[in-house]
This record gives sequence, structure tokens and C-alpha cells, in this order.
Amino acid sequence: MRECESDNTKFNTPAPHSHLRPCNTNNCVHRGRSEPLDLHLGMFLPTLLNQASPEQVDTFFIPAWNLEIIGTYAQTEMGHGTHLRGLETTATYDPATQEFVLNSPTVSSIKWWPGGLGKTSNHAIVLAQLYTQGKCHGLHAFIVPLRSMNTHMPLPGVVVGDIGPKFGFDEVDNGYLKLENVRIPRNNMLMKYAKVDADGTYTKPPRDKLTYGTMVFIRSMIVGEAGLALSKACTIAIRYSAVRRQSEIRPGEGEPQILDYQTQQYKLFPLLATAYAYNFVGQYMNQVYHRITGDMSQGDFSELPELHALSAGLKAFTTWTASSGIEVCRMACGGHGYSSCSALPDIYVTFVPTCTYEGENTVMMLQTARFLIKSYRQASAGHRLSGIVSYLNESEFRLQPQTVSSRATLVNGNNLQSLVEAYKLRAAWLVEQAAKSIQQELQRSVSQEDAWNNSSIDLVRASDAHCHYVVVKLFAAKVGEIEDPAVHSVLSTLALLYALQGITQHSGDFLQVTTASQTLKQLLVQLRPDAVALVDAFDFRDEMLNSVLGRYDGNVYEHMFEWARRSPLNKTEVRKNPFTMSR
Amino acid sequence: MRECESDNTKFNTPAPHSHLRPCNTNNCVHRGRSEPLDLHLGMFLPTLLNQASPEQVDTFFIPAWNLEIIGTYAQTEMGHGTHLRGLETTATYDPATQEFVLNSPTVSSIKWWPGGLGKTSNHAIVLAQLYTQGKCHGLHAFIVPLRSMNTHMPLPGVVVGDIGPKFGFDEVDNGYLKLENVRIPRNNMLMKYAKVDADGTYTKPPRDKLTYGTMVFIRSMIVGEAGLALSKACTIAIRYSAVRRQSEIRPGEGEPQILDYQTQQYKLFPLLATAYAYNFVGQYMNQVYHRITGDMSQGDFSELPELHALSAGLKAFTTWTASSGIEVCRMACGGHGYSSCSALPDIYVTFVPTCTYEGENTVMMLQTARFLIKSYRQASAGHRLSGIVSYLNESEFRLQPQTVSSRATLVNGNNLQSLVEAYKLRAAWLVEQAAKSIQQELQRSVSQEDAWNNSSIDLVRASDAHCHYVVVKLFAAKVGEIEDPAVHSVLSTLALLYALQGITQHSGDFLQVTTASQTLKQLLVQLRPDAVALVDAFDFRDEMLNSVLGRYDGNVYEHMFEWARRSPLNKTEVRKNPFTMSR
Repeated sequence: MRECESDNTKFNTPAPHSHLRPCNTNNCVHRGRSEPLDLHLGMFLPTLLNQASPEQVDTFFIPAWNLEIIGTYAQTEMGHGTHLRGLETTATYDPATQEFVLNSPTVSSIKWWPGGLGKTSNHAIVLAQLYTQGKCHGLHAFIVPLRSMNTHMPLPGVVVGDIGPKFGFDEVDNGYLKLENVRIPRNNMLMKYAKVDADGTYTKPPRDKLTYGTMVFIRSMIVGEAGLALSKACTIAIRYSAVRRQSEIRPGEGEPQILDYQTQQYKLFPLLATAYAYNFVGQYMNQVYHRITGDMSQGDFSELPELHALSAGLKAFTTWTASSGIEVCRMACGGHGYSSCSALPDIYVTFVPTCTYEGENTVMMLQTARFLIKSYRQASAGHRLSGIVSYLNESEFRLQPQTVSSRATLVNGNNLQSLVEAYKLRAAWLVEQAAKSIQQELQRSVSQEDAWNNSSIDLVRASDAHCHYVVVKLFAAKVGEIEDPAVHSVLSTLALLYALQGITQHSGDFLQVTTASQTLKQLLVQLRPDAVALVDAFDFRDEMLNSVLGRYDGNVYEHMFEWARRSPLNKTEVRKNPFTMSR
Repeated sequence: MRECESDNTKFNTPAPHSHLRPCNTNNCVHRGRSEPLDLHLGMFLPTLLNQASPEQVDTFFIPAWNLEIIGTYAQTEMGHGTHLRGLETTATYDPATQEFVLNSPTVSSIKWWPGGLGKTSNHAIVLAQLYTQGKCHGLHAFIVPLRSMNTHMPLPGVVVGDIGPKFGFDEVDNGYLKLENVRIPRNNMLMKYAKVDADGTYTKPPRDKLTYGTMVFIRSMIVGEAGLALSKACTIAIRYSAVRRQSEIRPGEGEPQILDYQTQQYKLFPLLATAYAYNFVGQYMNQVYHRITGDMSQGDFSELPELHALSAGLKAFTTWTASSGIEVCRMACGGHGYSSCSALPDIYVTFVPTCTYEGENTVMMLQTARFLIKSYRQASAGHRLSGIVSYLNESEFRLQPQTVSSRATLVNGNNLQSLVEAYKLRAAWLVEQAAKSIQQELQRSVSQEDAWNNSSIDLVRASDAHCHYVVVKLFAAKVGEIEDPAVHSVLSTLALLYALQGITQHSGDFLQVTTASQTLKQLLVQLRPDAVALVDAFDFRDEMLNSVLGRYDGNVYEHMFEWARRSPLNKTEVRKNPFTMSR
């Protein structure tokens, strides 16, 4: 299995956490929801195609395609997630029988979380440390039969089951797997790249950086999903805020739409702007990924490290903000935001795991920071940087690091380009602060590793500022492309709002508090008339949103009553014993 | 019913949202979880005791105590929550039959959310607009029989049912209730205070401010619950972070406890400090409430407005922070934080509704702001303020509002009292900014109401700063009371961390960024050795936490495996058709 041999271990890169992977191939049964077969379709089949030898494809792929073999992808263990090298499951080659013997040597080595593992799958691709001829060769992938093809009962030595209830993903039987001297034929190791011969001789896979590509692709996808999830939540909350009426602003004028309250606008419009921003960033990441994939197929890997770093940080940056933003949208709907009929609880529990899977967010931020610090040091050493970090070339910000007030004068709250500039200076300044923190730690004679750990708050802050700059910059660039004057105007307002909101939230970094919040309030007023149209523009059909509160036609209350009447509890008028009732 | 007649309508005060009320009387069946009978025990019985005439107590209380009558409290309607006066349900007196006729005249008037209403209750106390002799007298409470005492079937004109699945509270049959010309005897109106005579003559309740007391009490309780919920989440996350090992800091030294990572400390220790702070604030609110209740029974209501304002703002301030903090704790546990075995998903979905019920948080913040602005204007007019807002007397901060940099020099990041002072100045400054915003709006000739709405972002910010100041001040005061040197030392560290974390998060208001974050990092290192002991000191028994990750003994992984094996899906090895499996 190439992942453990590739360079990414240097960066402590997590490979895909298979347990909660979004799968776009079969979300037609339960709209957009995860299902027991997601891992079979989204991971088992693709992994066979990518990593099985031609002979193995013949043996396993066709039965899997026909749903005779139902597989999952078992990587994460109870005690090991992000740090791949820490995985404990072993596969020891026995040349006497030409078999691998698989074992879970400890409790913490039990495979944990893979979707469909508990009850659905009869096979799994298991990641295990390969031992042959007395030597460990790191992680490789093995096809392990788990259950009888006739009775579906677990095979000898296979202890498998469901891991129990969790936050969301109710439909998926995420599972555990304990292997006790389970023997599989030599041919069940996926051998397209690495190989073990009959006598136990090991052949390394050819080194390459292609495994980066998969991770980068998935993380780039998640950025787009952050835009999608936040767009849905905004659509529901803004539409419902135009339906719901509450209290009074002016006496005698009746209850206004709650979208007319400044506090409600302040909750929702910056998130709306964020949703637009992330949609654009998602599109950008997709384009860049495909461009760089093209370059790589030509043997040009030069842009990969930058894209790898960018996708890691943006994955963390966007999923954190989108998750908390979805909850803000939910709570902006009042009590009804707690009802499943709003769809918001489901959007949250389905999306929030992106903060943890495919690389835990803090680890992702630190990966981006590693690239930023490396770039900063190169620039300091006189190398000319290109690409997105080229702002670290510009040395003027380093001339007077303490005269931050002079930076403030650069910012014009109504000029998007001036705000992009402010974000750039902030990112440069915070990268420099992080680099200096490491330097100061080193001067106290601590080790490189301790200096890094003792500076990690600053490093995360630098990554955050870098990602924020990238998003503002891309949003501004997108606005610049729009020719239709009306669309250009409203998108400019959104982009300004996005940029100013970030400044008020991190005002200490910008020192532009008072003006920014004044301008921001004006932008809210400007956006109010377009708010519903802006979410309508996301073009979610009612069947996609599946939300009573977010209906296109605004007939919320009639449909809420209808929805409630269909509650399972209402099938009978009287339960036998109301005191023991449970659902 | 006094609530609609009392002064609280002036403040647009929500009365208790009955649907999700925490009830401490019967949480022994499901540890700490809500149940269908919560509203019967927590609202129906107490309301009878407080608002029924002696004759009505005889008629209704004994059967209710014996669980023959099972009641709930139906206030919230589908389209009306916080703004009580907007409730639409009507109770029209008919002197010909000496009955009230109850109706839900619109879809949005359908009662929605009350716990136990859907299937469990056979009676409800219904809040409705009282009409008699052609005139509306506002909201009053009526005992409405819903279901037959023999068959439990809904009575004629009663359309009642469960409102369907929601975020948490699975055990409770939150319900809807549509009333169609339902007739009840005159004696079913709760008549301890207001009265309707046989001929329809209405007698007003004696005006008083006692209804404040209940709201204040419940909101004060919620502040304590915020401390409790966040303490639980911190206990689980910090204990598990001492069990879980991941990656490497120093090569060759193996995987460290993740609590040794600075980023993990930065996530959890400020929340730990917050949990301690809120526990102290909860205790304080309880004490003040009982002191003021004593005063009120002596006829002294002078402190009530301040306490009312404080409890509203602190309820919002603490529940928002605690809710997002619980999610940070949950995600700090990695993938296992998503498993119900961690107890963290349950702590979140059970606690987060406090942001919405008992007064929506933004509305609460604006109530506190109304008190602050009133106090500020009194101080500006030369009146001497007493109590918690007395800092608005101190005019020095108003002399040089723009020379904020001079304020910065006041702050010494290692001196708690100097930080309390900084928070005080920030609160004073932001209250003044909000007052000025209103003034500026008025100068643009908008109405008082529009000026208020157009300044509401500033008003919420001022309330937030005021509450933050109160919490820091109370924490510092508590530290001052501690005599044991070791306890004093560690609590001082926590209080400093709490105060400095707020400063780094709102650095623009303080302008003390660099120093504060340096000191903050040192505090993390200082706290690391005591972190687990500090959560142990919360003294949650394992049965109370009910969390595999947060076990006192740290034997996480063995028990996680045991817990998973008991998953309902594992009762059978093979389901009949794994493809249609659902839970």
C-alpha cells in the first residue's frame, strides 16, 4: 500500500478516514444521506480498480460489481486515526502455506468506524502492517473475507459487529473488526504496486507522489461541500426568516418579518456571504486540481506541495466555519430549528464530521503552517516565491512590524481590493509572528520539535489567516469576472460583507474596528431586499432541501402541521402503556 | 394569568417555554434525560399550586398527584414563541352555559412543542386570550381536558398528536394541539388571581412584580446548568486526552498523550476555566436570587430590575459559550466524540436548546442592553448608579474615548485585578458606543424604535461585554475568598486564563494582543499537570457522566468494545435482508 511508503508520512498526513466518507454515487434512495453500501461503492470498488493486479481484478471485481461480494474499507482503529504509522493490525506472511495471518494484537488495534462493516459487508479491504521474512514493511492493503457467502455468519477468527448509536449517520452500520489468526491466501494482498512472492520476498512499490492526489482531491471536494451545506442552511434560515413574524419594531405596525431585525441580518447575511465565498472556492479548487492532475500526468509535480498545503488548510478553515454557521442558521429559526422537519439538525450532524475525517482539522492547519513556514524561510533567505505564497516575498511588512497603525490606514472598508490587501498583510504578519515564535523557542535551546509544538497556536493562527486571505482574494477575483451589472453589484456587496465581517471578528489583527462595523451595518441594509433572492439563486429544489421551514413557496405552517401528523407516534391514538412509550 | 398583565410585556419578555424545560424532580429513570412526565411534574402540578383557587386545588390537584389526571403546560404556538402577546388561541366566555369556548383560529395558533402533550397527557393548562363581555383581557390559563379518562381517546374538538422527530429529547412526545370549539366549565380557568364571574364580569389580578421572580429564578438556574454541562464535557475531553495517544512530538519517544499538544491545551483549558467560572457565577446567581426574594417578601423590589437584566444577559452569554464549548470538547475527542458512548452528542443536544428556550438569547441580550442604556443615561444625567452597573458612573473613560491606546497600558496580563479593570473599561466603552449609535440614529430623524433596531448589533455587543465583565469580576472575587494556598494558586491560574482568553478573542476591544497571547501560552503549560485533577474535582461519578471516553479509571478502549457489543444491531448475527436494514 503506497500511502505508508510515500512522502506523506513526513507530514503526518492522514489518509481518508473511510468511515464517514461522503458518497455521491447512490444518494438517490435517502436523499443525500449515507447508507450501508456507501463504502462498497465509494471505496471498495475504486480501491480494487486502483490497487489490484489485473488477475485480482478478475477474481474480486466482478463479484463485487454484482453485489455478491459486499466490501468496505477498514483503516481506522480504535486507538489510531490521523497518525497512520501508529496502526497496529498485522499481516504476517507464512510461506509454508502461502498465506497471510491477520491479527488484532491489542484492544486499541480493533478496526473501528468503517461504514457497512458491522452487519452489511462480507469482505473488507484491511490496512495492516505487513511482516515477511522477519521484517515489517509498513501498511499494505489486504482483501479479507469476513462472513460466509452462504449464511452471512462471521468466519472463524472474525469478531465483527456494529459500534452502536452515534451523532447522525443512523442508517449506517459503522462497525468493529477484531481479527484472530485469520488466514487469507497470498493473492488477497493488493499487488498492483507492492508485491510479496511465494517465498516471502518483498518488492517495494515504485515511489511516487500520486497518493497526494487522492487526498488533495477529497479535501478539495470537502471545501465545495462546505459551501453546499452552508448554502442549504442559509436558504432554510433566510426563507423562514421572511415567513416568520415576531414581536414589534414599530408600535402598532404589527409583527415584522424577523429578517427585518438587524440582529437577525447580522447572524445570517455574513453566513450567506460565506456560503457564496465557499462555493467559489470549491469551484476554484476543483479547477486547480484538474489542472495540476494534467501537469502531473506530464510528470510535472511542482505545484503539488502548494495545492496539498492549500487543500489541507482550506478543508479545515471551511469546515469549521460552515459547521458553526449551520448551527447559527439552525438557532436563527427559533424553536422550530430543533425539529427534524427543518432539516437543519440533519444538515449539521451530517456535515460536522468533515471537521474530523479526511484529516483532523487542527492537524490540517498545522500541515499548511509547515508549508508557510518553509516558504517564509525560503523568502527570508532570498529565494523568490511564486504562487499563492508570493506575498511572503514582499518584505515591506517586515520593515516595521510594530507600527501596525500604519497598516490600518491602508484599509478602505468600501474598497474590496484594499480589503484583500489588508488580509494579505495580516497573513504575512501572522506567518512572521509564528516563525519568530519558533525562533525564540529555539533560542531557549529547546528542540526543533518542542519549538514547533510550543508555537502551534501561532502556527494555526497563521494558517487561518492565510486561508482567510485566499478566500477573500478568490471571492474578489470572482466578482471581477462578473459582467452583468446587477449581479456584479450584489456580489460585490456580499464580498465586502464577507471581508468586513472577518475584520470585525479579528479586529485586533486589523485595527479597523469602528469603521468596519459601521460599513458592515450599511451592507446589511443593502442586502436585505436581495436576501431571499440570493438564496433562491442557489437553486435548491424543495426535494433537495427537504425542509419544511425552507420551502420555496413559504407555506411553512400548513406543511409543518401535515408533517407532524405523519409522525410514527401518531399511527395509533392510544398506546398500550403511555408510561413505557419510547421511540 | 398574571404574565400578560404584568410589566414584563414591556420588555417583550418570554415566559418559560414549556416544551423543553429541564426537570430535576424525576431524572432518576434515564439519568438526566427528559421524559414524557417532566411537564406534569415540573409545570402542571406547580402551576396548579400557584395559580389555582383553593377550590380548584381540591378538584384538580389530588387526581393529578395520583397520576389520574396527567397534565402538561401548553403555551408556545406554531407561529408564536418569545412574543407572548402574539399568542392567538382564544377562550371566549359564554354566560348562557357558564362555559369557556376554546379555539385555535389559525394554523399558526396551533399549540406546538409542549412536552408530553402528544400522547401522554389527558389534560393541559392552555394559555389563551380571554374574551368576555365582548372584550379581550389578555392571556389567562385554562385547564382543558384533552383525552377521555376511560379510553384515553381525544375528546371532541381536540386535535392532538406528536410533532415528530427532533434534535435530541427522543424520549419526549412533544405535541401539537388544535382546539375546535372545545367547551370547558367556568371553573376550569385558574382563578387564584384573575376572575370571571358567572355573568362574565372580569376581575383583574392584583398587579405585582412576582412573575419576574420565576423567570429570574429559571434563568439563574440555567446559568448553573451551563456550568454543569460544560464541566461534564471538559471532564470527558480532558480525561480522554490523557488516555489517547497520537503521532509524535519528539522522534523516537513514542506517541504522547494528546493533552501534551499545545493546540489541544488551547482548545480545552480555556473551556475548563470557563466551566469553573460559570459554576461560580451559577452559585452567585442562586445566592442573589434568594437574597432578593427575601427582600421582595419584605416589599423591597429595588434590586429586581438589575437582577432581571443580569439573569437575562448571563443566561444568553453562558448558554452560547457553553454550547459551542461542548462541541469543541466533543471534536477534541476525534472520531470517538461522534459515538454516543462518549456521551458528548447527548450532552450537546440536551443543552443547546437552552439558547432558545426560556427567552431566545438575542432577545435576552437586548433586554440586558435596555437596562444598560437606561443606566448609562441616568449616569450621564448625573444620577449616581449603585450595584453592578456602578462602573457607568466612572466618567474618566468617557473623557478620551478615542485614545484607546492609553487604556492598553492599564492591563497587566499577570494581574487578575488589572484584567477585571480592563473588562470594566471595555464594557463601559461598548455601552457608550451603543448609546452613541442610538443617538446618531436619532439625529438622522429616525424613530426611537428604528434607532434601537439599527443599533442592536452594538447593543448585543455591549451586553456581551457587560456579562463578560461580571463573570471575570465574580471569578476574581471567588479566587480572593480561597485560603488554601494550593487551591488559590491553581484557581488564580484558571481565572487569569479565562480573562486572557477573552482578551485574545476580542483583542480589538483591548489592544493587548501580543502580550496576552504570550502569557496565555505560559498559563497552558502551568495548567497541564493539574488538568485532570481539575476535572476530577468536579466530582462526577461515572454513572453521572455515563461516558466511556470520560471514565475515571481511564480504561477507555476495553469498555468501548464492551459497549459496542451491546449495540441493538448486534443482537442477531444475520439480519433477514441487510439491504433494507434500518434502525
